[in-house]
Amino acid sequence: MRLIEAEQLEDIALGAVVLGTGGGGDPYIGKLLSQRAIERNGPVRLIDVDELDDDALVACSAGMGAPTVMVEKIAAGTEIVEAFKALQDYLGKPIYATMSAEAGGDNSTGPFQVAAALGIPCVDGDLMGRAFPEIQMVTPTLYGISATPMAIADEKGNNSILNTIDNKWTETLSRNMTIEMGCTSKIALFVMTGKQAKEAIVRGTITYIEQIGRALRAAHAEHRNPIETVRDVTNGFIIWRGKIVDLNRRTETGFARGTALIEGLGEFEGRTLLIDFQNEFLIAREGDRALATTPDLITILDSESGHAITTESLRYGFRVAVLGMPCDPRWRTPGGLELAGPRYFGYDVDYVPIEERAEQ
Amino acid sequence: MRLIEAEQLEDIALGAVVLGTGGGGDPYIGKLLSQRAIERNGPVRLIDVDELDDDALVACSAGMGAPTVMVEKIAAGTEIVEAFKALQDYLGKPIYATMSAEAGGDNSTGPFQVAAALGIPCVDGDLMGRAFPEIQMVTPTLYGISATPMAIADEKGNNSILNTIDNKWTETLSRNMTIEMGCTSKIALFVMTGKQAKEAIVRGTITYIEQIGRALRAAHAEHRNPIETVRDVTNGFIIWRGKIVDLNRRTETGFARGTALIEGLGEFEGRTLLIDFQNEFLIAREGDRALATTPDLITILDSESGHAITTESLRYGFRVAVLGMPCDPRWRTPGGLELAGPRYFGYDVDYVPIEERAEQ
Repeated sequence: MRLIEAEQLEDIALGAVVLGTGGGGDPYIGKLLSQRAIERNGPVRLIDVDELDDDALVACSAGMGAPTVMVEKIAAGTEIVEAFKALQDYLGKPIYATMSAEAGGDNSTGPFQVAAALGIPCVDGDLMGRAFPEIQMVTPTLYGISATPMAIADEKGNNSILNTIDNKWTETLSRNMTIEMGCTSKIALFVMTGKQAKEAIVRGTITYIEQIGRALRAAHAEHRNPIETVRDVTNGFIIWRGKIVDLNRRTETGFARGTALIEGLGEFEGRTLLIDFQNEFLIAREGDRALATTPDLITILDSESGHAITTESLRYGFRVAVLGMPCDPRWRTPGGLELAGPRYFGYDVDYVPIEERAEQ
Repeated sequence: MRLIEAEQLEDIALGAVVLGTGGGGDPYIGKLLSQRAIERNGPVRLIDVDELDDDALVACSAGMGAPTVMVEKIAAGTEIVEAFKALQDYLGKPIYATMSAEAGGDNSTGPFQVAAALGIPCVDGDLMGRAFPEIQMVTPTLYGISATPMAIADEKGNNSILNTIDNKWTETLSRNMTIEMGCTSKIALFVMTGKQAKEAIVRGTITYIEQIGRALRAAHAEHRNPIETVRDVTNGFIIWRGKIVDLNRRTETGFARGTALIEGLGEFEGRTLLIDFQNEFLIAREGDRALATTPDLITILDSESGHAITTESLRYGFRVAVLGMPCDPRWRTPGGLELAGPRYFGYDVDYVPIEERAEQ
């Protein structure tokens, strides 16, 4: 156990955008809400999953929706706590701890708001080791753990409890409810026992993103190359450097979907990279050749600052580096690839681990 | 209190289609499921609302969705009971009785299935005195009674509990969930105390539709005119006789929407009536002149049998009579007209009671 103060959320949020792979939302608002909750209620106890009793309950706190809308439609501020309380009321027993469902973007800091407001610990980990666009794309699905009962709340005061037959149905029903709620909602889901969590979650993700953020901050202070810093701390590969020359972005079926075209610079001069996204970056291709695909992480970093750029913040003319990073090994199993591999998203491309692609 | 046997559901279902004003679904399947439940578990106690203790709870059982889909996508059979049980579990206390949310079509018999399966009474009444397409269009809305907590279940095993800030939001969120569930769902909602129900419901609707059904059956047996029989027992007005010459029907935003064009016959020869529907018949017009509008009831009866025809059963060439019937007086108040008057549905027509229109 260690205590997380408001200050530390700066590094956590900074690192989270790197694992957000373009999605997960801009953590700025969520970070402020969580910092305010910590200032009011005291620091949050970040615990290792092994510190959970086998029969203690943990549930994830998160935001759902299109990040493009999240940044425009500000949360009322407490609905992430309301969703968690609604889930707890429904269960009729206390949930011992909360945690992150995805380490990416806004969903890295949201659980700290819930933990601070309710005085409960936050488990160091998440369910993806990155951000993914759909609810069923989490490691607990691979262990047969249900996303429901799930609570969903909006900023107006509407809320719902869902019970579904599988996690894909959870995605379908809550996505549509989120669309009706105005394209964003706050959710509480994946109630697990300590025993289940120890097996099913991705461990240590909060500590990991804090390390990424801290390394990036140190690189700035010490005038080291921030791109190489992020690459080194994430075991990533710089697959492209260039300038954004075209953007195609739409909010569709509750997601931010689109493409970014990046003209090469330096060693990539004269070549062009196309990146597709559905909230998160899914595939980076030069013509027919894939340079990186989901479930490996693809992140676009600002060339100067090394800060990761979310899909909704991409702009024409930005000079960027594209980083490919290895995903949690469970995403590379047949079950993991079925859930979140390139073919799930409609790409007729075999998954090849980024380490192997980078060597080609 | 009186006992309702399986046999009596025949008259109830027959009469319900008359108040269904084209909507509420074909009661055939619902009737069979309810009859089976009664045969297994014994007759259902139909009680007057005044027999409810002031603090006893009652909640409505109903189906939601597009009737055009309901007749094709058969219910698993028990989800209306599952929805009711999910609501009761959520409340954490027993619901003493169930009742009909709308007397029209399938929703007249559904509550008997729940009552029989759970051994609870059914209150004689409904929340409309007819069928209406949207959830907020019920007399309890006029008394500030919330539709939620509401349970919603599908035939696959998914279910949800909704809590909304108003009954229009209940409609929006549950309609979309119903669409995702495949355009039909079963619901339990409008938990009321006996005290609230005594004020807010439309009383005696089950007995009323049973009378309509019985009168129609007697007319057949005694070779009396069934159209005039229905007119007399409902205090209605025959506003048209003719032949259906055009139908325009589509399933849209979870509703069966469309129009029926009826060429006049007999005294209406040489004239044409246009009827618009959104699940239910909303307005009957000859050119610019409205002959009947919501919230009064408009029902299309088969000329020969006097049986009411649901929107999904309308066919080219059917010879029909159109009946206009007065609605519950509360629908004629400013609040009632705001909820379900012609302008709510986008018609630039003042509401004039059917009794006055019929005299014009």
